[in-house]
Amino acid sequence: MACVVQKFGGTSVGNADRIKHVAERVVRTADEGRSVCVVVSAMGNATDELIELAARVSTRPHPRELDMLLTAGERIAMALLSMAIAELGREAISFTGSQAGILTDTAHGRARITEVRAHRVEEALQQGKIAIVAGFQGVSPEAHVTTLGRGGSDTTAVALAATLVAEACEIYTDVEGVYTADPRIVPLARKLNVLSHVEMLELSAAGARVLMVRAVEYARNYGIPIHVRSSFTDAPGTWVKKETETMEKAIISGIAHDSSEAKVTITGVPDRPGIAAQLFRTLATEGINVDMIVQNVASEGNTDISFTVPRGDLDSAEPVIDAVAKQIGARKVATDPDVAKISLVGAGMRTHPGVAAQMFETLAEAGINIEIISTSSIRISCVVRGDKIERAVRAVHDAFRLSEEFILEEVPSTSARDTG
Amino acid sequence: MACVVQKFGGTSVGNADRIKHVAERVVRTADEGRSVCVVVSAMGNATDELIELAARVSTRPHPRELDMLLTAGERIAMALLSMAIAELGREAISFTGSQAGILTDTAHGRARITEVRAHRVEEALQQGKIAIVAGFQGVSPEAHVTTLGRGGSDTTAVALAATLVAEACEIYTDVEGVYTADPRIVPLARKLNVLSHVEMLELSAAGARVLMVRAVEYARNYGIPIHVRSSFTDAPGTWVKKETETMEKAIISGIAHDSSEAKVTITGVPDRPGIAAQLFRTLATEGINVDMIVQNVASEGNTDISFTVPRGDLDSAEPVIDAVAKQIGARKVATDPDVAKISLVGAGMRTHPGVAAQMFETLAEAGINIEIISTSSIRISCVVRGDKIERAVRAVHDAFRLSEEFILEEVPSTSARDTG
Repeated sequence: MACVVQKFGGTSVGNADRIKHVAERVVRTADEGRSVCVVVSAMGNATDELIELAARVSTRPHPRELDMLLTAGERIAMALLSMAIAELGREAISFTGSQAGILTDTAHGRARITEVRAHRVEEALQQGKIAIVAGFQGVSPEAHVTTLGRGGSDTTAVALAATLVAEACEIYTDVEGVYTADPRIVPLARKLNVLSHVEMLELSAAGARVLMVRAVEYARNYGIPIHVRSSFTDAPGTWVKKETETMEKAIISGIAHDSSEAKVTITGVPDRPGIAAQLFRTLATEGINVDMIVQNVASEGNTDISFTVPRGDLDSAEPVIDAVAKQIGARKVATDPDVAKISLVGAGMRTHPGVAAQMFETLAEAGINIEIISTSSIRISCVVRGDKIERAVRAVHDAFRLSEEFILEEVPSTSARDTG
Repeated sequence: MACVVQKFGGTSVGNADRIKHVAERVVRTADEGRSVCVVVSAMGNATDELIELAARVSTRPHPRELDMLLTAGERIAMALLSMAIAELGREAISFTGSQAGILTDTAHGRARITEVRAHRVEEALQQGKIAIVAGFQGVSPEAHVTTLGRGGSDTTAVALAATLVAEACEIYTDVEGVYTADPRIVPLARKLNVLSHVEMLELSAAGARVLMVRAVEYARNYGIPIHVRSSFTDAPGTWVKKETETMEKAIISGIAHDSSEAKVTITGVPDRPGIAAQLFRTLATEGINVDMIVQNVASEGNTDISFTVPRGDLDSAEPVIDAVAKQIGARKVATDPDVAKISLVGAGMRTHPGVAAQMFETLAEAGINIEIISTSSIRISCVVRGDKIERAVRAVHDAFRLSEEFILEEVPSTSARDTG
């Protein structure tokens, strides 16, 4: 029987009525003759409330105990959903991450799935039951309960879809799919019908919050089609799947932006082999998550290195950066929390020169200064002043006419070569 | 190293401040050089709130899923307590019922502990850690999560005390110990310093809510001393332990009352062997919990049978009782929800005639009619009108001078023989 994994986020199961609504949708899918494995997050703000409770008894909660605490959230949601489904006359059975065989490493709070042994889930599905699995959680080799970090439920869903050889992994959320830009900033943003795993990966990495990077990565590795859709309507959402020859060839898929990072610039760095390695190894060891890294060609034996870090980590990162800068003999460290990043993503840009130039021109015409540029074969990212980010997103969205359906084989007027 | 099990109920861990308070007490005990295993209930009304949530998505929640839901409660409490202890500089580690090796049968919602395999708890204690265990929960042979029913955390604590060969099981609660009667009804009720397992068993079975019957039963079977005490003071509470020769020989330990039951009377029951068996087997099969059973000698080939059931079960019990009454050829079934039971308990009454007579006289003098009488060797119970129960408790407490210390080897004035 065809199998589908359906994942519902915290908003979708935010209260008893919404849980009943989700139950109806799940049962409808099962009634269509498919076997259904459901993955749920904790109800509404449950996770945040538990974190707040922890903060009231402990200044620095032990990661193992914090995971023990937080996993209560999905447990409640999954049991309630299971009951609500049974109420509709369908057999359902709920499983914790551990019971569902979600094996992880030992990194509490940000564990990675190492293996999925979903025997109990498979058995339940074979018996015609609907299986409900707690997202976000797993179990370490020492039998400690672990969590996968924010957005981990998406990864649970994709991992189960891979193990169960599901025909799709449906991610139900409070938006209708993946958009060409954040609709709160660009009212004319268009819902995408389909995009490739790689494009979604770049969008997620660049700040699109609809899907977490790790879930998309997992889906790409196992070739799992993801269907991002609204839990409040029946309209089809956005398919994220393997790139194929027949896939619509939009040059640009969409724009992502990220206002959560801060910029660090180290100037006067001696241009010697191994210097960058020393810097970023130290930051990695200290657990500081570095995103964009840009280094220019050296002049007069010195170079400048810029990178971005999550703004919340800046305070703890600064002393580490200062120390390592001193060690490598750099001249100066400057930090800047008031920045934001705009990224243009599209598999089509690989074969279309001029996209980067068009983006830079558009920003210049809007009076927005570009502080850092970084590109991949299907993405161009620019760091700009934080208070300019919304204007930047709107200007670039307009320039590439992303509100219109299918921009195929055509680049907006520009004669410049792509500088990316 | 001497080991102690400390159990804290829902009120004791009702909010973050109380959890910190409990953490201090636990650490104090550990600092005295004892290894400490802590058992916790869910915070405050958490269990009731989860039950309410379940009722909002399901008219009759599946017992397995209800257990999955409810066990989130202790999970939250234990993780928070573990963090609060770590905050005080002591290593702590929390375990679910399953992780602590609390193996049970498959009766969801009222599972019985079949075995305790507390290897992980023992290992933690040996490493000098404080072990925090979720009360009320276990795991069935099919690896489903189970709960032990109301008050189940007491049983968890006693079972762990037996397995860990603890010197005592301390039950921390919101009262200061076991009293000669409910202090809300009898302001002069006296806190007992010590009583035997058997006496406590009778008091619990007769409605004293401070300790659950199954926990006391378990403690008696394994000879575990229980210390019932307040989590808000350091005053010693009540010790419940093996009856010994040197134990103070009070005739009466105390009075328990129970206003939660309803009375059922079946009249004109044919006096044939096997009739009672047929009746109560049917009720047992239907899951109706029968408490007191009284049958009088037959006259003219017929007899009357009375018994009590939890008032909440009366509606579902009535059709069953009616059917079986018809089957066995009884004349009539009468039910009465407005009753209550007063019980006088004391190991000393075994050797002191006249206790029952005194109790009946006292109730008569207070103008309270006795509807059913039932006795054991150390207990006398009377069913009276529900609205008379408080007056009955006060009158009997006065008559036996239970506010005074040590009523030894002396019976209040009466010449009648014990009719029990």
